[in-house]
Amino acid sequence: MGSLLFLQRMTRILIIFQVSILWVSIDVPPAEARIHNYTWEISYQYKFLDCYKKLSIAINGMTPGPAIDAVQGDTIIVNVINNLVMENVAIHWHGIRQIGTQWSDGTDGVTQCATMPGDTFTYKFVVDRAGTYMYHSHYGMQRESGLYGIIRVSLPNRQPEPFPFPYDYDRDIILSDWYHHNPYEQATNLSSIPFQWVGEPQSLLINGRGKYNCSLLGSSVDPEVCNLTNPTCSPAVLTVIPGKTYRYRIASLTSLSSFSFQIEGHNMTVVEADGTYVEPFVTQNLYIYSGETFSVLVNATQDPTRNYWATINVVSRKPATPDGLAIFNYYPNHFHKLPPTVPPPGPLWNDTDSRINQSLAIKALQGHVESPPKTSDRVIVLLNTQNTIDGKYRWSLNNVSHSLPTTPYLIALKENMSDVFDQTPPPENYNPDYDIFNVANNTNATSSTSIYRLIFNSTVDIILQNANTMTKNNSETHPWHLHGHDFWVLGYGTGKFNNETDVGKYNLDNPIMKNTVPLHPYGWTALRFRADNPGIWLFHCHIESHFFMGMLALFESGSVMVSDPPQANMGCGESKRLINNTILA
Amino acid sequence: MGSLLFLQRMTRILIIFQVSILWVSIDVPPAEARIHNYTWEISYQYKFLDCYKKLSIAINGMTPGPAIDAVQGDTIIVNVINNLVMENVAIHWHGIRQIGTQWSDGTDGVTQCATMPGDTFTYKFVVDRAGTYMYHSHYGMQRESGLYGIIRVSLPNRQPEPFPFPYDYDRDIILSDWYHHNPYEQATNLSSIPFQWVGEPQSLLINGRGKYNCSLLGSSVDPEVCNLTNPTCSPAVLTVIPGKTYRYRIASLTSLSSFSFQIEGHNMTVVEADGTYVEPFVTQNLYIYSGETFSVLVNATQDPTRNYWATINVVSRKPATPDGLAIFNYYPNHFHKLPPTVPPPGPLWNDTDSRINQSLAIKALQGHVESPPKTSDRVIVLLNTQNTIDGKYRWSLNNVSHSLPTTPYLIALKENMSDVFDQTPPPENYNPDYDIFNVANNTNATSSTSIYRLIFNSTVDIILQNANTMTKNNSETHPWHLHGHDFWVLGYGTGKFNNETDVGKYNLDNPIMKNTVPLHPYGWTALRFRADNPGIWLFHCHIESHFFMGMLALFESGSVMVSDPPQANMGCGESKRLINNTILA
Repeated sequence: MGSLLFLQRMTRILIIFQVSILWVSIDVPPAEARIHNYTWEISYQYKFLDCYKKLSIAINGMTPGPAIDAVQGDTIIVNVINNLVMENVAIHWHGIRQIGTQWSDGTDGVTQCATMPGDTFTYKFVVDRAGTYMYHSHYGMQRESGLYGIIRVSLPNRQPEPFPFPYDYDRDIILSDWYHHNPYEQATNLSSIPFQWVGEPQSLLINGRGKYNCSLLGSSVDPEVCNLTNPTCSPAVLTVIPGKTYRYRIASLTSLSSFSFQIEGHNMTVVEADGTYVEPFVTQNLYIYSGETFSVLVNATQDPTRNYWATINVVSRKPATPDGLAIFNYYPNHFHKLPPTVPPPGPLWNDTDSRINQSLAIKALQGHVESPPKTSDRVIVLLNTQNTIDGKYRWSLNNVSHSLPTTPYLIALKENMSDVFDQTPPPENYNPDYDIFNVANNTNATSSTSIYRLIFNSTVDIILQNANTMTKNNSETHPWHLHGHDFWVLGYGTGKFNNETDVGKYNLDNPIMKNTVPLHPYGWTALRFRADNPGIWLFHCHIESHFFMGMLALFESGSVMVSDPPQANMGCGESKRLINNTILA
Repeated sequence: MGSLLFLQRMTRILIIFQVSILWVSIDVPPAEARIHNYTWEISYQYKFLDCYKKLSIAINGMTPGPAIDAVQGDTIIVNVINNLVMENVAIHWHGIRQIGTQWSDGTDGVTQCATMPGDTFTYKFVVDRAGTYMYHSHYGMQRESGLYGIIRVSLPNRQPEPFPFPYDYDRDIILSDWYHHNPYEQATNLSSIPFQWVGEPQSLLINGRGKYNCSLLGSSVDPEVCNLTNPTCSPAVLTVIPGKTYRYRIASLTSLSSFSFQIEGHNMTVVEADGTYVEPFVTQNLYIYSGETFSVLVNATQDPTRNYWATINVVSRKPATPDGLAIFNYYPNHFHKLPPTVPPPGPLWNDTDSRINQSLAIKALQGHVESPPKTSDRVIVLLNTQNTIDGKYRWSLNNVSHSLPTTPYLIALKENMSDVFDQTPPPENYNPDYDIFNVANNTNATSSTSIYRLIFNSTVDIILQNANTMTKNNSETHPWHLHGHDFWVLGYGTGKFNNETDVGKYNLDNPIMKNTVPLHPYGWTALRFRADNPGIWLFHCHIESHFFMGMLALFESGSVMVSDPPQANMGCGESKRLINNTILA
C-alpha cells in the first residue's frame, strides 16, 4: 500500500472522528483542520459572459461563483441565502463523498427539499481528500444559469509525501457552455409535444468568458443587449511566467457539450482525474466531459515573446458553436495581445476512437490508489436508450425512465414513507436480443421513481451500455456521475458488452477511480464500486437536459445508518406530514 | 334595510354555518349550495398572446386561466398542482373575503408558504356574495406571466329579488397588459442599483389577445418568434345579437396600466363595482384600475350591418403602448370583419379630473348596500411616497417601506413566533409639514415587516395621501386593494387631506363598497372598514412592481380566532421549526 493511500485512509478515520467533534463544538477546531465559513447570497443578475446580456445566477455577484480553496481535512460551511425571488435552489458538492454528512449532498429530490426564496440553507461537510472538485446547482435545469464553481483541495503542508508531480503554480480553469434561452424555456421545450430540443449552446466559456457573434442577431441589435466591445466579455487570460510549470485544475460544468481542450504549441501532462492521481501521460489535447475534473501540468517553455491560444471545441456532437478561446499569455506580454497565429482547430468532432483511447489512457498512479476488489457481488447492466413516453421524449435505463419524487428519497426512507416512491426494484438488465446499432422498433418505456437497493459494503459492478437513439445512425456520449462514491473504471469497449469475453479484459491492476466517466457512442463502460457510504445516491448522466429527461438511477445502501432528517432539509412533499402545528399553538 | 342587504346578511350567517358543516362532511352538501371541484395544473407554456412568443404560465393549458362560474353560497375547491419545475406558486382569490377560510387567501408571506414544484395545494372557500371577482398569482412578480382569471358569482335562481338590472346575456372581459421580459428580469431590474424601471408594457390585452408590431424587432425577426399572421393572436371578439342587452363583467388584471375601456358608438351603464351594486350611471368610457371589477350593461342597438371597435387605452401614465383592440361583432357579420371606422382614441391620458369625476360617480345602489358606521374608532393616514433605501428605489407609507417576512405572518401569529417580523407598530401619520407637491429633500426611508394591529370589530378609517414621486412634477395613480374585507369609499379629493374640512364632506349616505380603489395623482382617498374578519390581511397597491417595491401594509385583527395553520400552508422560513422529524423515525 502506498504511503499516500495509507495516509488517506488514516485521515479518513481521523476525519470521521473529527466530524463528530466538530458537529457539537465548532468553536474549538482540531489543531490541524480549518473551518471555512462562507455566506453566499444567490441572486439573479444580468451578465454579459459572452457579450450577450443574459439573466444569470450569481453567488455574491459572481458568475461563475467563487472558488472554494481548502486543505484536505478542512470543514466547509456554506450558508446559502436564496434571493431568487420565486425560484428555489439546491447546491451539490460534486466529488465530495459526504461521509457522515449525507444531508449536505445538495440534491433536490434525493437529500433535501430545495431551499425557498428568503430561506437560508447551511451545507457543512469535510473535504477529506486533496484534489479538484466542483459545486453546482442540482435543481431542475438551474445549473445552466451559471450557478457553479470549482473546489480546490490541497494536501496539508505537513504531508510527508507532497503532491507527486512538482509544479510552480496552481491555477483553475472552468469550462462551460452557455445558452441564451433561460432554463424555464429549455424545460418547456424538452417537455413539449412535439419535442423541442434545446439545441447546441450559443457560446463556449473559459472561466466564464466567451464571445458571441452579435451580428447573428441582426444589424439593428441593441448594443445594450449584445456588444462585443463590452469589457466584461473580453477573453479569459491564463498568464504564465516563462520557464515555470503550471498545474491547471480543469473542471467541465457544461450543460451539454463534450470538449477537447488544448493550449496551442504546448503539451499537457495529465496527473489528476476527479481527485485521483493519474499515471502521467502527455497529450496535446484533453478530452473532458461534463462533470469531470483533471489536473494537467504545462511547462511555459515556448516562445516567450508572444501569446498563444487556449481553446475548447465541441466533440462527440456535430458542432454548431464557435470554439471557445482564451489567451495563454506569456508575461510580460500584454494579456490582450492577440497571438499571431490562427487558433488550433482541435480534433475532428467525430473521432470517437481518439476519445476512447484517451479514456483508456487514464489509469491510476501506481502505488497511490487502492486496488479494486477482484470480484463483485452484483452486476447491474444499464442499457441507455432514448424513448417516448406519453408522446414526450425521455431517456431510459433498461426501458425505465426515472423521475425524482416530490418528497426527497432520503427523507422518505428515514421516515418510512413507503408511498412516496415506487417500491418495485427497477430492472438490472435488458433483453439480450436488443439491437443497439439501430433505432428500436418499440421506443415506448415506462416512468418510475424506483431505486436500486444495495447491500451495505457490497461490491457492485455497473455496465453502462450505449445504443442508437431514436435517430438513425446516432448514438450519443453520456458522462455518468455517481454521488457519494468514487468508482473504479474497469474498462471501455465498443459494441455490445459481452459478459464472457469482456470481463476478462478488465483492468484490475491500476484502474482510475473517478466519479464521472464517459459512455462513448455505441460502446460500453464498466465500473465497480463499494457501497460503503450509507444513504441514497444519484447516478446520472451529467448532461443537464438528459438528466431532466430521466437519465438517472438511485442507489441506496445502509440508509438506516444515516441520521434523522434535519428540519432544514424538509418542507416539500410529504415531509409536511411531520409538521406539528400544535406544538406552540 | 333593502331586502337584498337583508338576504346577504342572512346568507352570510347561513354560509358560516354551512362552512363548518362542509368542512367535516363534504359528501353531503346543503341542498342549495354546490361544490365545484377543480384540478388545475400550473405550467409554463409558450403563448403568442400578442403574436410575440413568450413563456407564459398556463392553467390546464390556458392563459388567462379558466373562469370560475358559481352561484352565491357555493363552495369552490381548487387543487393547484405546481408543475413550474423550479418556481413556486400561490393564488389569491381577489374579492373573496375568506370568512372562516383565512388560510385559503393565497398570499405568499401572509397566509401561506408558496407551493413548491411537484406539490399540490388545495384552496377551499365559499363564494358568499354574488358579483364579479378575480383570481391571480400572489407571489413575487408571477402575475405578469398570465396566471390570472375571472370569478363570476351569480345570484341563486330562487333569489326573491333578482339582479336589479335586467339583461339578456352575461359575458366576461379580462383586461391586462403584457410584457415581453419575464418576471425574473423585471424583479432584477427593479432591485438594481442604479434603478432600472420595467417600462411601459409591450401590449395591451383584451381577453388575453393583443397585437404587437413585430417589425419593431427588426426586419429579420424570426417568424417563429413574432408573427402577426399567427391565428392565436387574432383580436378578441365580443359578439352580440342586435337588440339584446349585455352585461359585461370587466376585470382589470394589469401589471401596471390604468385603462379607459370603451365600445365605439355604445354607451355603458355601470351597475356593479367589486361585487356591489352601483347606482347606475351612463358613460362612454369606463376608467378601470388594476384589481378592479365592474359590470356594465350595453344595449346592442347600433347599426347591425357592421362591427365596432372595443378599445382600451392607457391613462394616468404617458402611453407608450398601442391601444388594445377587440371587435364588437354584430351577429351575423363575420367576427373578423374589421369595423369601417378608426378606433376611438379614448380620453386624454392626463385628464385626471375626468377620472376623479368618474370615481366620485360610483355610488352604492340605494337600499341595496349596508351603510357605513357614522364614525370610526381609528384613523390611519398613509402618505404614499417613492424613496431610496440603501440605494434602491422603494415605495413607502409614512416613510416605511414594507416587505414580507420569510415566514408567513399568519403562521407566525398563530405559533407565537415573535422574532419573525418587526413588533414595533408602523407610523399612523406623517409629518404635517410634508410638501406633497414637490420632490422631498430627504428621500430616505426605512424597511420594515411591521403590522397594524386593529381591535376586532372596530371601525377604521384609512386616508391614502398621494404625493410627488422622486421625479419633478410627477405623481402616480395607485390602485389600493384590501384583502378579506370591503371598504366604504368615503371620498376623494385633490391636494393634501384636511382633517378639519374634508371629513365633513364624506359621503356617508351611499358610499360604494369596494375592495380596490384608485388614489389619484396629488390627491387623497378616504376609506372606512370594519375589522370584522379574523386574521391578517394585505392592503397594497395592485401595481405589481409597486407591490414588489414595498407599497403594502398589513392589518391584523382577531387572528387569535383563526384556526391552527394547516400543514399545507407551511414549510418555509421558521415554520420548519415545527417539523417533528422523530415522529416516525
